[in-house]
Amino acid sequence: MRLSRYFLPILKENPKEAEIVSHRLMLRAGMIRQQSAGIYSWLPLGKKVLEKINQIVREEQNRAGAIEILMPTIQPADLWIESGRYNDYGQEMLRIRDRHDRAMLFGPTNEEMVTDIFRSYVRSYRDLPLNLYHIQWKFRDEVRPRFGVMRGREFLMKDAYSFDLDYEGAKASYNRMFIAYLRTFERLGLKSIPMRAETGPIGGDLSHEFIILADTGESEVFCEKTFLDMPVPGTDVDFFDNAEIASIVERWTTPYAATDEMHDEAAWAEIADGDKVSARGIEVGHIFHFGTKYSEPMGATVAGPDGKEVPVSMGSYGIGPSRLIGAIIEASHDDNGIIWPESVAPFGAVVINMKPGEEACDNWSERAYAALGEAGVDPLYDDTDQRPGAKFATADLIGLPWQLIIGPRGVKAGTVELKHRATGDKHELDLDAAIARITGA
Amino acid sequence: MRLSRYFLPILKENPKEAEIVSHRLMLRAGMIRQQSAGIYSWLPLGKKVLEKINQIVREEQNRAGAIEILMPTIQPADLWIESGRYNDYGQEMLRIRDRHDRAMLFGPTNEEMVTDIFRSYVRSYRDLPLNLYHIQWKFRDEVRPRFGVMRGREFLMKDAYSFDLDYEGAKASYNRMFIAYLRTFERLGLKSIPMRAETGPIGGDLSHEFIILADTGESEVFCEKTFLDMPVPGTDVDFFDNAEIASIVERWTTPYAATDEMHDEAAWAEIADGDKVSARGIEVGHIFHFGTKYSEPMGATVAGPDGKEVPVSMGSYGIGPSRLIGAIIEASHDDNGIIWPESVAPFGAVVINMKPGEEACDNWSERAYAALGEAGVDPLYDDTDQRPGAKFATADLIGLPWQLIIGPRGVKAGTVELKHRATGDKHELDLDAAIARITGA
Repeated sequence: MRLSRYFLPILKENPKEAEIVSHRLMLRAGMIRQQSAGIYSWLPLGKKVLEKINQIVREEQNRAGAIEILMPTIQPADLWIESGRYNDYGQEMLRIRDRHDRAMLFGPTNEEMVTDIFRSYVRSYRDLPLNLYHIQWKFRDEVRPRFGVMRGREFLMKDAYSFDLDYEGAKASYNRMFIAYLRTFERLGLKSIPMRAETGPIGGDLSHEFIILADTGESEVFCEKTFLDMPVPGTDVDFFDNAEIASIVERWTTPYAATDEMHDEAAWAEIADGDKVSARGIEVGHIFHFGTKYSEPMGATVAGPDGKEVPVSMGSYGIGPSRLIGAIIEASHDDNGIIWPESVAPFGAVVINMKPGEEACDNWSERAYAALGEAGVDPLYDDTDQRPGAKFATADLIGLPWQLIIGPRGVKAGTVELKHRATGDKHELDLDAAIARITGA
Repeated sequence: MRLSRYFLPILKENPKEAEIVSHRLMLRAGMIRQQSAGIYSWLPLGKKVLEKINQIVREEQNRAGAIEILMPTIQPADLWIESGRYNDYGQEMLRIRDRHDRAMLFGPTNEEMVTDIFRSYVRSYRDLPLNLYHIQWKFRDEVRPRFGVMRGREFLMKDAYSFDLDYEGAKASYNRMFIAYLRTFERLGLKSIPMRAETGPIGGDLSHEFIILADTGESEVFCEKTFLDMPVPGTDVDFFDNAEIASIVERWTTPYAATDEMHDEAAWAEIADGDKVSARGIEVGHIFHFGTKYSEPMGATVAGPDGKEVPVSMGSYGIGPSRLIGAIIEASHDDNGIIWPESVAPFGAVVINMKPGEEACDNWSERAYAALGEAGVDPLYDDTDQRPGAKFATADLIGLPWQLIIGPRGVKAGTVELKHRATGDKHELDLDAAIARITGA
């Protein structure tokens, strides 16, 4: 993408409404714009990152056997009256009356609707296990939305729902999602640690939060150091081998790990000091098993092997891709801006033409831009007439993994400068070598 | 995807609420489920088709220089009060009060919000032309939603908005979208004909509807036969060559073409009978130029070359991907079900194992399934224990381009049967030849 034809509205000043670094950097890098309290437009750079995250989430859900659907944002109140949650949800639920005065709402979550889909079609235990997920905008009318996309009112959520005949099956479904989450966060460049969680108003008795460590995290967390280099399962995991996935989950749930709320001082005291990590964390995912909480009142039953009807045992599994962008930035930035993990960087590299209009600089830059594009790097090409200082500041701010800097002096000497954003390392190289370094060729 | 692990809830009976063939087939093929009047969940097969359409729309928007963003579904009423449209829209607009009693609405379209984004960042004519688009769910509270996804209340729309300094620039932006639309519909397997349209409540004086011909179309249309084999611009179009794109648009707007509403009997009478086509059509896209209708009241101005502030000249360009699915089915089906164009087929082929559990059938089927997957065909594998008749009926109903049928008799004779859904042609082939036919190798 040529920057001269792109829409990248960089802010020079720190927006004063931003209380945390991710919010500040997302506004400054032209990724989002607030339209109302807690409601954002995603500008081109933000939209690209959001799609990259969605795609990784999707691939790992699919790998674990979950199937993608898409439920609407607007739901009839009837379903929530049926489950008994319509009044529980309070003012966080955005209630709506349509033109025929029917009670509707903007879905804050989808347990009811997916249970309704299930009961409409599935009759037999032979069609289980089933796990349906979608990636859809949700609305929760927070009293004081803040921290940018970390706690917005309209936010994107991937929510998966599993259906099984019994607890054993449900546990296996839970384990599949547990491992899918470990893999998802690792691919996003995050170190996540599963921590036992309260099940809260959603009910049930098996629940983990996935927490990433970040100095600016919202809450205190406690865990054993062993988590920090525990290997995340690879693509060779057989998600349909229940014994294998159970043993992986056991390995990941045996060492001590707890959020502030669930912290057990006595157990903590028994761990050797050198094996402890106490740090700030950000919740990036949450998985629950809640059994028959919805299937029973809503009549979502299947015929078991003996022909008897039983309500299905369910779980739900949430990741917020819009919130994750904030979390990734909290975990990966410096004073100059964002440092994107390669997997979610909006562009793979930026080619900085220091002197557009000068023939040699233009030629070299065009050559680099074309070569990187052909190699699948998806480069941004800064062909604008901004001053060099402004170009460097923008490149650091938007945090692409590589900066390929092409200036008149270098061109004369036959070299370009390659800067690696994460480490700050700079090298003078010939153009082909620089391109090869970026493409990993 | 193994059908035994998929969620494909086929309906055997014709749902009586479906008045038109696309609605009937989408319900029967397990693509959608109605959740409230005019509000649908997209089941796995429907979701896959929707994503394929979105991707083609997106690629052609990007090719034409439009830039993707994502605006939220919920908008503040203020913007609409500012543009003067808040009261115009009537009961079709879903009005909402949040917990602080602020007036909000579920966006039926985004002229106001995108104009607000523009005015927040863009100051100079040097940043033009600019075209921002998004693919987002909209809500229009129709009195009597019907025809399934063809006229739903919550529907997906790609809406693009162009910003230019003057009419000349706006005309070029309009022409770029005109050509992008021709290319988009062709890639979707549709024959589209641009027809001059009323600008209606949205205002302005340059407007075309893109109509596809389908026997079951909603309205009567009239055009010259020459449209039927007019070549659609290829990927070599230079979208930034204003003269080139203007001449293409001229070629496509010179022969007679009109919807019922805009039909001119006198002009029509002058065309030779053999050159006329009068048929049923379905509107699948609409492009408008509306000038300063929003930029003026909302103060979206830029400094021109002479330093004077001028309100920008705007256009908007809509395609409804959810509606398009209905339109594609209306244009491409038979008595047995859907016939997907290859570009949007949810899977590239189905491998039908006639006798799961028989070793040779299983081996051949697995081999075909693996080979097609590796070739990027994204096959569905019917490994269920349904009877052959039911498997054939399902395969025809869901309309994948190819059916590869593997049964015990064929395997013994060393052959499989390959059926092409669109033509109904069947061939007995050896397995490798059949795979090669599907993959085009």
